[in-house]
Parts: sequence; C-alpha cells; structure tokens
Amino acid sequence: MPMTKIYLRSGRTPEDKRAISDAVHAALVEVLGIPEDDRFHVFHELADEDLVTEPVMFGLERRRETIALQLHFGPRPVETLRALYSAIVTNLTRDAGLQRRDLALNVIESPSANWWIEGRVLDPETGFDERIAADKIPG
Amino acid sequence: MPMTKIYLRSGRTPEDKRAISDAVHAALVEVLGIPEDDRFHVFHELADEDLVTEPVMFGLERRRETIALQLHFGPRPVETLRALYSAIVTNLTRDAGLQRRDLALNVIESPSANWWIEGRVLDPETGFDERIAADKIPG
Amino acid sequence: MPMTKIYLRSGRTPEDKRAISDAVHAALVEVLGIPEDDRFHVFHELADEDLVTEPVMFGLERRRETIALQLHFGPRPVETLRALYSAIVTNLTRDAGLQRRDLALNVIESPSANWWIEGRVLDPETGFDERIAADKIPG
Repeated sequence: MPMTKIYLRSGRTPEDKRAISDAVHAALVEVLGIPEDDRFHVFHELADEDLVTEPVMFGLERRRETIALQLHFGPRPVETLRALYSAIVTNLTRDAGLQRRDLALNVIESPSANWWIEGRVLDPETGFDERIAADKIPG
Repeated sequence: MPMTKIYLRSGRTPEDKRAISDAVHAALVEVLGIPEDDRFHVFHELADEDLVTEPVMFGLERRRETIALQLHFGPRPVETLRALYSAIVTNLTRDAGLQRRDLALNVIESPSANWWIEGRVLDPETGFDERIAADKIPG
Repeated sequence: MPMTKIYLRSGRTPEDKRAISDAVHAALVEVLGIPEDDRFHVFHELADEDLVTEPVMFGLERRRETIALQLHFGPRPVETLRALYSAIVTNLTRDAGLQRRDLALNVIESPSANWWIEGRVLDPETGFDERIAADKIPG
C-alpha cells in the first residue's frame, strides 16, 4: 500500500502529471509487485518561491522541471530500492519528458503494521498484502 | 507531539475539515494519551488531478471523498497502533460523514529525540512528554 | 541530501520565505556539514483553516506565525540532532523575525540507500556524500 508524493513547480498540464503518475506506478508494480489497483499519488504543485533549489546541485545544472518524489511503503532490501530507482528513472525519462538530473527520490519505510486501509488482506505469514507476487515478498 | 497531515480533494467546507480534525484529535488524545492542547494538523486540499487513486482499490469502490492521513509521532507498540486506527475510523465515520472505505492511514514513527518544540518538558525516565497519562507510556 | 518541508500560514512575502530558507539551510550546512549547493526546501503555504493548532500549546500562547519544519536526512546521533535544533532556532529567531514559541521541528531519518539523485557520489567507506566534511560523518 505505497503512498507517493510528487513535488513540482506549477505549470505542468494534467497530461504531464498523468504521465508522471503512470511512470512511477508502473515502476512500483514491476519492482515491488504491488497490485495494479494500489495507486495513491499526491501532487504538490508549488509556486517558484515555494520550491527552493540551487541552480547547480551535485555538479549538475538543475532545471525548472526538477521534481522530488517521496515514496512511502514497507521495508524492502537495498537491492530492491536500487532496482526501483532505476525503473522510476527509466520510466520518467522515457515517458514523461524528464531528464535524469530533474529527479530526486527519497523512500520512507514504515512497517506493515503502520498502514491501514479497508479491504486490504494481509498474508499472516508474510505480513504483506496477499496479492503481492510471491517472488516480490522480501525474504 | 504528534503531527497529522490530511490529504483530500477540494470542495470540503471549513466545517467539514474541523469535524475531521476533531475526530482525529479525539482519537489521538484517547489512545495515545497526549495532552488536549497538543494539536498540529495540516490539511492538503488537492485538485482532482493532484490526488490520484483508482476507482476500485482492494476490491472496494473508492469515492471522491477518499482521504489519506499521515500521522507522525513517537514509537508505539503494534496494539496501540491498532487501537488508534479503530478509534480514528470510528470517530471519522460517526462524526465527519465519511465511510470506512474513504480512509487510508499511515503512521510514521520517529523517536522522542527527533522532535523539538518550546515548552515541552520530557520526563527523563520515559523520554515522553511529562503530561502524557502514565498508563499510556509504552513500557 | 536533506529535504526540508516548511508548513506555514499564508501571508508571508517571498522575502520572508527566503529568510526562513536561508536560516534553515545555514544550520544544516553548519551542523551536518552538507555541501552549500545541497538545498531542497518545500514551502506549504496554508489557509488558516488548513493549519490547525491550539491557541495555547505546552503552556505558551502560539501566534499565527507558528511554523512547522519537517527535516528529512540520513541517521545522525542525538547530540547532532540537538545541535541542529539549537542552530535552526538561533538562526530563525535572529534572521527571520520568528520567536522560539513559533517553531515546531521534526526530523525523519532514512538511511543513505533510501535516497537517489543524479550526480551524488557516495564515499563507499562512510556511505555518505563524499563532499560532507570528514568531521561531520557520524562515527
């Protein structure tokens, strides 16, 4: 039951946002094995003065298109996180008109017991949603 | 010193929001034993395109009224989290015109040392606000 | 690669926000030793009804100017967190027209593997950005 927040500067069209949402969701479904219907994304569209970055960060010029993603879900191994970053970056640069240098990602993990939504059925053995693909459950 | 964020689609009245805030605050006071005056709630009112969900999630049709709560506070045992979800869901469905399927909850725990506010006095033995009811301090 | 979110009531000028951002950034650079160019701040400017506090909290009258900061970065020792709160409070009260009772701070730590940004080079020995001052790396 991930929740994703997307911080970006105003001026994007609804279609731009949909492309971003779809790109991130496809990566979460592919890498974490979450169900297709488990999407909860929030866009925070910010005035220029409300998203403060530096013109050059980590040696790269940053564009007005810079966005930050905060992804909330249950604990995963480091390799899974790395595969997820790779999939998100691939999808966003291919399908949403963004460049690698436009992206900043942060994952905030909280255990399964820290989530509640009506209808979710946890597998008592794994503690994860019973619909998550078996090969995606952290060992 | 909890902090609560409430994500919802625009169109709610100030009275609706107050009812939501009061319902959540009453649950936090009852279950966590926090002081009555310790309320810090943020509402993020979002355009439809900025809160992206699926029409059916976990087998249930989701309404436009769907809201997500992120609750930030110090570590609590799993039973306390479960009691809190139950109290929040009870209060919101009874007093704020919401249905169970409208609600998604996530708790993000951070230890006592990760909070600062002027005036808070920590009990050196428990590490919690000295005004929290003794029977609510995690053992 | 910290990310900072600032929650405040509407009515602040761009100059007010810049002063807040600069004060917080200076504290992060000084206490955590992050590079000068590593700034990512989000302001959430909220209607009065969307930032719900109590008139008196922890025994102190709270003003309309009350702000909350959520600071996201990698794990640090408790002494570092305390030094950071002290620096933030000092800078904000000296340079941004705020009072101590206006401030509420929360740190959410997530490990180095939970962050991704193009251009960041991690020191394989410490797991931290290679540009962080050596004496600021947690032991």
